[in-house]
Amino acid sequence: MTLTAPRYIGVDVGGTKTLSVLVELPPHGGKPVVIDRELLPSHGRSDEAIRMIVQSVSALIERDATVPAAIGVGLAGFVDRRGIVRSAPNTPGLIGVDVAGELGLRFDLPTLVDNDANCAAVAAHRSIGRDCESLVAVTIGTGIGGGVVLDGRLLRGANGFAGEPGHMVIDPDGPECPCGQRGCWETFASGTGLARLARLAVERGDAPSVLELAGSVAAVRGEHVTGLLEAREPAAMAIFSEWAGYVALGIANLIELLDPEAVVIGGGLSTHGELLEHLIGVELEQRFATAVRDRNVRILVSAGGPEAGAIGAAILGAHRHST
Amino acid sequence: MTLTAPRYIGVDVGGTKTLSVLVELPPHGGKPVVIDRELLPSHGRSDEAIRMIVQSVSALIERDATVPAAIGVGLAGFVDRRGIVRSAPNTPGLIGVDVAGELGLRFDLPTLVDNDANCAAVAAHRSIGRDCESLVAVTIGTGIGGGVVLDGRLLRGANGFAGEPGHMVIDPDGPECPCGQRGCWETFASGTGLARLARLAVERGDAPSVLELAGSVAAVRGEHVTGLLEAREPAAMAIFSEWAGYVALGIANLIELLDPEAVVIGGGLSTHGELLEHLIGVELEQRFATAVRDRNVRILVSAGGPEAGAIGAAILGAHRHST
Repeated sequence: MTLTAPRYIGVDVGGTKTLSVLVELPPHGGKPVVIDRELLPSHGRSDEAIRMIVQSVSALIERDATVPAAIGVGLAGFVDRRGIVRSAPNTPGLIGVDVAGELGLRFDLPTLVDNDANCAAVAAHRSIGRDCESLVAVTIGTGIGGGVVLDGRLLRGANGFAGEPGHMVIDPDGPECPCGQRGCWETFASGTGLARLARLAVERGDAPSVLELAGSVAAVRGEHVTGLLEAREPAAMAIFSEWAGYVALGIANLIELLDPEAVVIGGGLSTHGELLEHLIGVELEQRFATAVRDRNVRILVSAGGPEAGAIGAAILGAHRHST
Repeated sequence: MTLTAPRYIGVDVGGTKTLSVLVELPPHGGKPVVIDRELLPSHGRSDEAIRMIVQSVSALIERDATVPAAIGVGLAGFVDRRGIVRSAPNTPGLIGVDVAGELGLRFDLPTLVDNDANCAAVAAHRSIGRDCESLVAVTIGTGIGGGVVLDGRLLRGANGFAGEPGHMVIDPDGPECPCGQRGCWETFASGTGLARLARLAVERGDAPSVLELAGSVAAVRGEHVTGLLEAREPAAMAIFSEWAGYVALGIANLIELLDPEAVVIGGGLSTHGELLEHLIGVELEQRFATAVRDRNVRILVSAGGPEAGAIGAAILGAHRHST
């Protein structure tokens, strides 16, 4: 008789794409193995968004001989303790929807829905290995999400909304945030924040290279900076370094509060992981040394890869299945 | 046969005074009962500091018929996982000293030394009661200390230095902090920060009342503001409100990250607890609403009273005793 490791489906519902993976989770925290994947567009409308998730899960189940043991879904936003999506900037149609309930009915499998940064956190925890019992995962995209693992378990908080560093205020006179506050970390250290710093540099006349790429000040986006990093273009490097300083500032704050073994940074910046890791290290040493003094902490950028969110969703589905 | 609840000694080593209490801890999380107390001056020198602690513990033991089950000591600063004091701004003589080891040898009792804000956190947790499983305790004095209780247990962190919000950066261009960083929360929201805001107000000519009380700009301290609050003196109220805004900012950040059931504020500001609680509530509603939106969280100022630190030390001693 051959014992096979149980299989799980993880779905990462992004702003534009829904990535689903079929994952084998070896026992005793072994490395997850991705058996199959399915990529479909995401939709903002409730019925379409659910239909895309159902379609991708169905495709994976149809192609595989075994029935998965559980399904996990991750999305940007807040999911309350009853599993209802409370906010979802990328997929507003899912707000108020019991996604897990809908999928559970459809597939008759244990199903769990969680914040995508929480999924990234459990994926990072499993990928780093069992010697790391506490970490903070920071997901940098349009905004900033976060997930905290302490004593090997995801920190959920009293209301299910723990580990949300994006709206930590780091400058009370800073830019207005869509949330209504001023100077939230994500107004500085997200992709949106990088674009803002780039526009300021272009307006000051400091970044003609970025302006040339973008065409106009208003059109400047983060990609116009990151696109020039490979060639080490000085103006782009300066903007990216300034931005990395803000990333480091927030990470220092997280370390002061949580004293984790590792901070894992994921999201859209993964192609420049090595550079970002270096810049954060320099800033932590020079400007935010109090956070790292006497503390042993690893800073890892994009250790998880592009499938980390979906794999983490599968792992959370597995937790749901086993409890 | 009469069963008596076990007794413990808790010591709170402050900058000027060492307060020791003999506490009865009823089983099942019942309310601690302070049986006796001993107040002695603190000392900066290592041998004198230890001698004061020994003397106060001896006095309590001599006056009581029963031998306590354990001793707990709290002090401002960091204590590493082996019990060695790593930093101690108020009692520099204790740096590098194994205080628990010294006391353990002297009294032949289980002894534990911890950060004073950690002591305040466990005291608050026990005083709020068993329906509250997560809280953040913030101790505002010359600096800002913190302690975090999650799932009913003190969060220690990978290096033993978790829950230190004082050096969270809330303004990268803010005032220089003695720690070497700029704009740490405690440069704004501590007693030192209140004095700084008061001096700025006096320099602007906005607070003649405070200047009169202090005599000169350089002599302005936090007490010159708080001393005028009872009479609701407008300039003092304005300075205190501005200061409370910074307190609220940091509390909002803590809520974003930890989503606790309660935030408990203690330390030197306890005499103005009601006013501070009100001002923080207003700021959280108006300027930092993202933190409290969809979250249920209680903000409590000085729920513990002046003996909270010593009681908390006794409770931590009891934990040590039972594990």
